[in-house]
Amino acid sequence: MSESTTIIIFGVSGDLAQRKLIPGLFNLFQKKKLESNFRIVGLAGRPWQDEDLRATARKSIDSFAGFKVENDKWNEFAGKLFYISGDFRNEQSYNTLSEKLEFLEKGAANRLYYLATPPDFFIDIIENLGKTNQVDELEGWRRVVIEKPFGTDYESAKKLNSEIHKVLNEEQIYRIDHYLGKETVQNILVARFANTIFEPIWNRNYIDNVQITVAEKVGLERRAKYYDKVGVVRDMFQNHLLQLLSLIAMEPTASYKANDLRDEKVKVIKSIRRIPFEKVESEAVRGQYRGYSQEEGVSEGTQTPTFAAIRFYIDNWRWQGVPFYLRSGKRMPEKVSEIVIQFKKPPHLMFPLPEEYEFSANRLTLCLQPDEGIHLKFETKVPDTIAETRSVDLEYHYRDVFGKDAIPEAYERLLLDAITGDASLFTRGDRSELAWELIDPILQAWESPNAPPLPIYEQGSWGPIEADMLLAGDSLKWQRGCGNH
Amino acid sequence: MSESTTIIIFGVSGDLAQRKLIPGLFNLFQKKKLESNFRIVGLAGRPWQDEDLRATARKSIDSFAGFKVENDKWNEFAGKLFYISGDFRNEQSYNTLSEKLEFLEKGAANRLYYLATPPDFFIDIIENLGKTNQVDELEGWRRVVIEKPFGTDYESAKKLNSEIHKVLNEEQIYRIDHYLGKETVQNILVARFANTIFEPIWNRNYIDNVQITVAEKVGLERRAKYYDKVGVVRDMFQNHLLQLLSLIAMEPTASYKANDLRDEKVKVIKSIRRIPFEKVESEAVRGQYRGYSQEEGVSEGTQTPTFAAIRFYIDNWRWQGVPFYLRSGKRMPEKVSEIVIQFKKPPHLMFPLPEEYEFSANRLTLCLQPDEGIHLKFETKVPDTIAETRSVDLEYHYRDVFGKDAIPEAYERLLLDAITGDASLFTRGDRSELAWELIDPILQAWESPNAPPLPIYEQGSWGPIEADMLLAGDSLKWQRGCGNH
Repeated sequence: MSESTTIIIFGVSGDLAQRKLIPGLFNLFQKKKLESNFRIVGLAGRPWQDEDLRATARKSIDSFAGFKVENDKWNEFAGKLFYISGDFRNEQSYNTLSEKLEFLEKGAANRLYYLATPPDFFIDIIENLGKTNQVDELEGWRRVVIEKPFGTDYESAKKLNSEIHKVLNEEQIYRIDHYLGKETVQNILVARFANTIFEPIWNRNYIDNVQITVAEKVGLERRAKYYDKVGVVRDMFQNHLLQLLSLIAMEPTASYKANDLRDEKVKVIKSIRRIPFEKVESEAVRGQYRGYSQEEGVSEGTQTPTFAAIRFYIDNWRWQGVPFYLRSGKRMPEKVSEIVIQFKKPPHLMFPLPEEYEFSANRLTLCLQPDEGIHLKFETKVPDTIAETRSVDLEYHYRDVFGKDAIPEAYERLLLDAITGDASLFTRGDRSELAWELIDPILQAWESPNAPPLPIYEQGSWGPIEADMLLAGDSLKWQRGCGNH
Repeated sequence: MSESTTIIIFGVSGDLAQRKLIPGLFNLFQKKKLESNFRIVGLAGRPWQDEDLRATARKSIDSFAGFKVENDKWNEFAGKLFYISGDFRNEQSYNTLSEKLEFLEKGAANRLYYLATPPDFFIDIIENLGKTNQVDELEGWRRVVIEKPFGTDYESAKKLNSEIHKVLNEEQIYRIDHYLGKETVQNILVARFANTIFEPIWNRNYIDNVQITVAEKVGLERRAKYYDKVGVVRDMFQNHLLQLLSLIAMEPTASYKANDLRDEKVKVIKSIRRIPFEKVESEAVRGQYRGYSQEEGVSEGTQTPTFAAIRFYIDNWRWQGVPFYLRSGKRMPEKVSEIVIQFKKPPHLMFPLPEEYEFSANRLTLCLQPDEGIHLKFETKVPDTIAETRSVDLEYHYRDVFGKDAIPEAYERLLLDAITGDASLFTRGDRSELAWELIDPILQAWESPNAPPLPIYEQGSWGPIEADMLLAGDSLKWQRGCGNH
């Protein structure tokens, strides 16, 4: 970024901006990844002055930037922070914004508009930016970062895309899935395609099944009102879990450029076997943790699932017949995100083993958090025996090699990418729609008046018994590969 | 072993018996792997009584058994130790032995004769055992363990086999290669064939080359006279290094039984491309460490190599074109035995990399000693970069899983196997001859009067520069994968 750039944050007083965006931008600034000619303009409803934003930002950075703030650096950064009090739905606010930007920029500048607002405002904001001529690219690029959720089903996502495309080109749109900004998620493709040893066995000939777990220990926190409308499938599956599945399942790409990467990911989504309405019962499981319906902010008689598990198949040469099990939930026993690649058992063991001996299969686990790294379970000989085997882990941990603070926040990376124009880790419009199309029948089945009763699971458990039965039907169990499992 | 068994050790006062065999037998006894009805009869030249052997054995066990000796256990064990003073070449000694055995055994008993003597005595001892009717199996089994070296070239090994076979069946002969008794060596087949993930990539399609290093830090110690006649190729290559190569290269066996295992190992030796006399110069390198010729006990003008490196090819479907580099030497920088499986580089990297970027290939290292375990070098993403990669190690260490004392001495395992009649880890006669046949042209080239000058290498180096050049010719370098490499 050798030119002048402005980052405009809608909803700058909100949680996301204060916990992630402002600290992320400050970290980038401290690491000298942002050149000096930039400024940040925040817009929100509160009657703040620049100084109020600066004071709040300082507190956020102290809490969330991850290291001690140098005063010199802070003062320089604070001088680049500006605030506008406005109304997202009022065109007049955009005129004010436009004037302030021109005043601050003193000439041609690039602009990154970050929509850190509730989704209800997305279309209004983009329309108003269009009306006030803030997105034409005559004097520098104009990009818009859109937060999740991107729609609530296929129809709404399609409508959202169509409204946005009236104002912006697809190349200007950066749809966030912050999971893609995680180091360990980005490492999936490096692990697969910078190593010779995995790709030859990365297919239906050697892999028995894949399990993706994204578990939260917390419950609703402050998001009850939002979450109760949305539920776990919209909140986690349509975006994060299907993105992880795509990274595991996709073919090598022609290049590492955004559209080549996104083409391959879309290809995976297109190849996933649709689960029709009438089959949802056998392929997917939902649950609600005990006590959820009594939480504050939750609607009466709520049927919102806080846990789901889904079995997908991918109809292509590489994956035909290999089940991908995805699960995610709240109030699980621990916070963990991991992907288990369960290999098949050896076709034959020539060792002298007891008659009922249970073959143990290799298992590669990509540990996304909190134990960032890789575990490879393999069989070794128990010392002082003829050929008894035991499963042990080959282990690699990021922290051992790169230090415990090496892994940056996902948002830091995503902000930098948006600024430098690399859309690789952002969701393309067609992908959003396709993922919704895939998820819609499941939502419809579970939200239909004829849906069977919603299973309840205990807090601190791995979901309802039905989730275990989903795998038991395939003679399998849910696996855990990271930490001490 | 529910019956009565006698273990007869020829050369019981020697180094091998005192450092390895007696402590090994005591360990087996302590671990209750030997049932109580056994005895050990030692035979050597010294004018000892039973009590002298017991006193010496106690000292050896205190020094080498690896844990604190309980007095109760020791007393019980000492009561089973007997000594005969005799002459290996005198038939009368064998009559004395025979009488003593009958007296001690008080009836039918199995007998394991262990030849822990210099190789000059092997044939004499076996002939005398035959003459005194000690090897017929009318009253229990009779087995003979023969220490290395088994011959000094093809002709002598063939003659030795033929002499021995006049007295013993092949099934009665247990030729020691103590390398095969090492836990980590036995684990090679478990790692290869109890895991699904290695076998598919264990071939010429994915493996670029294999490197086997067996390095000693020490020089001659007390073995000058023996070693100077033998040199590194006879001492290490014909047996240990070729055994390791066989375990890496062999096909899965029909069963884990001795002859099935040995059939497959022999098949590998048969498939190794012969290096004819005239090609030794280009395929093999020898060296002698500086100062060797001044060591006490070494012959004047000695041309004995203390280091060698050899490139072998295996002419079969699995390995065609994959070089196997073997090296071993004395006075190296460290004591280490390891096998490096160097995989090919990925066929294509789609990541944005600098133009001169050097692909890094995966490397699996089987660490035999002293860092017993497995290292798998693979590429991971450097945090906070787009897609820079860095090589890191997935690691597994025996000591972490099984404790630091879990790995028994090789001899302990081999003694138990000989007693229980499992010949899997012993060398079959045909294998000895075939290995000598393979090695002979190299010995002949280097021992010929027209041999080029013997390269000298510095103590504490990895051998002469020629060893590096051998690999440089293939655009390769010697690799180290264990420890912190």
